Amino acid sequence: MRKIRMGMIGGGRGAFIGAVHRMAAALDGQIELVCGAFSSNPKKSKLSGKDFFLPSDRVYGSYEEMIKKEKTLKVTERMDFVAIVTPNHVHFPPAKMALENGFHVICDKPATFNLKEAKSLQKIVKKSGLIFALTHNYSGYPMMRQARDMIAAGELGDLIAVRATYMQGWMHGMDPNETPKRGAWKSNPSKNGRAGSLGDVGTHAFHLLQFVTKLDVADLACHMKSYSPHHQLDDYGHAMLRFDGGASGLVSWSQVTHGRLNDLSLEVDG
Amino acid sequence: MRKIRMGMIGGGRGAFIGAVHRMAAALDGQIELVCGAFSSNPKKSKLSGKDFFLPSDRVYGSYEEMIKKEKTLKVTERMDFVAIVTPNHVHFPPAKMALENGFHVICDKPATFNLKEAKSLQKIVKKSGLIFALTHNYSGYPMMRQARDMIAAGELGDLIAVRATYMQGWMHGMDPNETPKRGAWKSNPSKNGRAGSLGDVGTHAFHLLQFVTKLDVADLACHMKSYSPHHQLDDYGHAMLRFDGGASGLVSWSQVTHGRLNDLSLEVDG
Amino acid sequence: MRKIRMGMIGGGRGAFIGAVHRMAAALDGQIELVCGAFSSNPKKSKLSGKDFFLPSDRVYGSYEEMIKKEKTLKVTERMDFVAIVTPNHVHFPPAKMALENGFHVICDKPATFNLKEAKSLQKIVKKSGLIFALTHNYSGYPMMRQARDMIAAGELGDLIAVRATYMQGWMHGMDPNETPKRGAWKSNPSKNGRAGSLGDVGTHAFHLLQFVTKLDVADLACHMKSYSPHHQLDDYGHAMLRFDGGASGLVSWSQVTHGRLNDLSLEVDG
Amino acid sequence: MRKIRMGMIGGGRGAFIGAVHRMAAALDGQIELVCGAFSSNPKKSKLSGKDFFLPSDRVYGSYEEMIKKEKTLKVTERMDFVAIVTPNHVHFPPAKMALENGFHVICDKPATFNLKEAKSLQKIVKKSGLIFALTHNYSGYPMMRQARDMIAAGELGDLIAVRATYMQGWMHGMDPNETPKRGAWKSNPSKNGRAGSLGDVGTHAFHLLQFVTKLDVADLACHMKSYSPHHQLDDYGHAMLRFDGGASGLVSWSQVTHGRLNDLSLEVDG
Repeated sequence: MRKIRMGMIGGGRGAFIGAVHRMAAALDGQIELVCGAFSSNPKKSKLSGKDFFLPSDRVYGSYEEMIKKEKTLKVTERMDFVAIVTPNHVHFPPAKMALENGFHVICDKPATFNLKEAKSLQKIVKKSGLIFALTHNYSGYPMMRQARDMIAAGELGDLIAVRATYMQGWMHGMDPNETPKRGAWKSNPSKNGRAGSLGDVGTHAFHLLQFVTKLDVADLACHMKSYSPHHQLDDYGHAMLRFDGGASGLVSWSQVTHGRLNDLSLEVDG
Repeated sequence: MRKIRMGMIGGGRGAFIGAVHRMAAALDGQIELVCGAFSSNPKKSKLSGKDFFLPSDRVYGSYEEMIKKEKTLKVTERMDFVAIVTPNHVHFPPAKMALENGFHVICDKPATFNLKEAKSLQKIVKKSGLIFALTHNYSGYPMMRQARDMIAAGELGDLIAVRATYMQGWMHGMDPNETPKRGAWKSNPSKNGRAGSLGDVGTHAFHLLQFVTKLDVADLACHMKSYSPHHQLDDYGHAMLRFDGGASGLVSWSQVTHGRLNDLSLEVDG
Repeated sequence: MRKIRMGMIGGGRGAFIGAVHRMAAALDGQIELVCGAFSSNPKKSKLSGKDFFLPSDRVYGSYEEMIKKEKTLKVTERMDFVAIVTPNHVHFPPAKMALENGFHVICDKPATFNLKEAKSLQKIVKKSGLIFALTHNYSGYPMMRQARDMIAAGELGDLIAVRATYMQGWMHGMDPNETPKRGAWKSNPSKNGRAGSLGDVGTHAFHLLQFVTKLDVADLACHMKSYSPHHQLDDYGHAMLRFDGGASGLVSWSQVTHGRLNDLSLEVDG
Repeated sequence: MRKIRMGMIGGGRGAFIGAVHRMAAALDGQIELVCGAFSSNPKKSKLSGKDFFLPSDRVYGSYEEMIKKEKTLKVTERMDFVAIVTPNHVHFPPAKMALENGFHVICDKPATFNLKEAKSLQKIVKKSGLIFALTHNYSGYPMMRQARDMIAAGELGDLIAVRATYMQGWMHGMDPNETPKRGAWKSNPSKNGRAGSLGDVGTHAFHLLQFVTKLDVADLACHMKSYSPHHQLDDYGHAMLRFDGGASGLVSWSQVTHGRLNDLSLEVDG
């Protein structure tokens, strides 16, 4: 009978999604943050640890150091799992190391930087017998669970069409020199990977669509564009889907649609 | 200083869109219905004329008869224009005959049954010097006019993306034996032409998109399906568009989406 | 088998509600406007008659003249009823005269200028055996009819509470010198009577509440205020109601609530 | 640099609002729960303490015991403040004792059971120099803060009218034998005090109205009713308000309005 002990990789001062993970973890009182490597800059990591009232010996200068040291602690003290909330190119290496050293992992999406890493990760997870969780968080909404259950119970009959959208606007009006540089790495292919807004928000819409309908895509046509002057990656797109069994699907996503903060919709026709 | 005199082709008892044209024509008190060939069935045409309180000599058994007879009436009495509200395969022949006999035409969409007719009609209109109007009626909404004017005035800057949808649900739950047989001809390719719901509602969404943005389509990919058991034509579809200049577009349409009566939306990102 | 013939009192150039009555009368093709006394200014009445393409001998200089002359016409020609769309202080006199001369009346609300006139009118209507109709038009909405039927069928069980609101904003920002002077007479107690916005919009909300629920008011407390600098009459108010049987009610109305065009709501708790 | 230490009075197994306080306290990582007297039943308090992973010597059988013992602990260990989340008749006694023993208090609303207690509490707080906070939580919404700031900055000019509503429906359909007995004490005047739904939800609407507008009530008329068969206290009501300076106000509240979960609205006219 105790709280589950969480370590965090990334999420220090100026970061965005780390705070969201900490809030979500704190909500039901079952998890406590016990350690962290909060930045690739050791000094910044130390300062961030103070913000969270952690003892200084549990705030590390790198994730490698954290995983090594935590492993040496007593089983009644060391972290149970790590939350990885770093830019996309730093998802796979710490996940790999954590799993290989016996720690469960909860990772911000996307799982990895590219397909090769993803396939490698799949094997590592299997071998470890540990949990690797990806935060497709919107599937946790009660309304999505109800939609899923209604469809599974046949209340909509055969499904014929699905439409999902995820629209944001913050990238369009963004000043590239603003502080903190929210999402600056998101337009950098060497840090974000090759699927900008598709990976950032489009995947949420697509995941929900699959989560709720259980439909599998047979084939698709996709269009992606970059409209914001500050980005090298796609910031707008849509895809037409054909599902096994004949249903039709449509997914739209954007981070350059003025007036939209974080708008997610899902429609299912049966 | 007088009312404009309207003749009507189609729109008799049991018809749907004819009544809509008559209401729209009556609203501002500038138009009066003076004659009609309200059905391909002469008896039904006569009965329908009584419903509209027309003198029996102005209710005709066929559109050919109407156009011929009206032409012989005094210029102070005869109709000024015809409203064509018949199934799609009877759009071109009366439009041609009316224009060639000196009468303006207002025609329910689509203009013609196929591309060949459309090209032919274009020449006839040009030669006649008369008005041929197609009822893309939603462009008359004040909100659409305002959107068009805001875009024309540059208030949105360069346009980057447009999304238009037109969703209905009535075809899905339709009983094919119901009376009146609303839209029975709409699923018959020999009366409706080959673009079922695309022609019926999708074109409204697409027309609005063009009317408001003035964007021209460079290329497109389209997906159309027929889900209702009572139809031989498409009743659901969507298209991805690429516009000249680089903007992206998406159009969705349906007549089998439960819970939707007549839902039209247009979003423009700049 | 003919159209019903309407005469109109008021509703000439620059008027607001007359055009609404003409549109509503034209919609289903059962009524035609045949004559009118469109203004208390005979010249303006004549000009307005031209706008509606009426023969000049059916456009009158006063309602008294119209009622007298129409009565002398053949029964196949003369008007069947008058629509009264004048300021409130000119509702009772033409209604009285029309009814006493054999013409049905449809009158814009409120029925009369004061209670004395109303009681007098009640007797005149009874004696005449003719129809006197008041345009509580919102009760014609299908949704209101459905609400009424659901309640009558007991679908909500015993009613416990009702809330109705009618909110407009146009009076607040109004420039008293604007042309046309929309509603200028509405702030003049000698033309509007003593219940400004309560009579203009509040009564619609209250009428709907009664129409839908069939509840009778046992007692009430009301608060009325005038906030616009251009008005001598109330432009904002609300009332708490106690109904026979114990249900509670609330009605709110305004013509000075910024951002509201013509917002009507009705909620019924059972 | 440490977390603020919270003790809790009430909020054990089966309670509703205690969990909300714990979640709110946990969200930003600045507060930790260190002790509690979670129930008036000592056994239940002990079991509840285990749910929150507290050491057994910090889980108390009564609030009197907790306040006494915590006071004897080292200043680096003992709680900084208590959260009181008990039924209304147990707000004043623990608040008084906590304040008189040097602990800050955050208390669920209403502050006290009656006016006499409230006046007494006011003096105790003043004398103690400590913080007594009441959870009028909705005033924390960013939108409410923005509304308040817009009004304070004069963006709406002089305020003329305010309307606030807080509508719930759960009491209407409630089964009095359901487990857990959510809100059973709320219909008991000896535990809830005399203002049932007015105190439970109406006060939130009224507080928001004051918080946002800074208007003071000059006089008011109020109507309260009890419609649910399971309650001895009011479950529906509304009040008309006159504010100093001439603005008008309306507040509505309900816990018996079917279809409403927790609907709060605020409208301000200027």
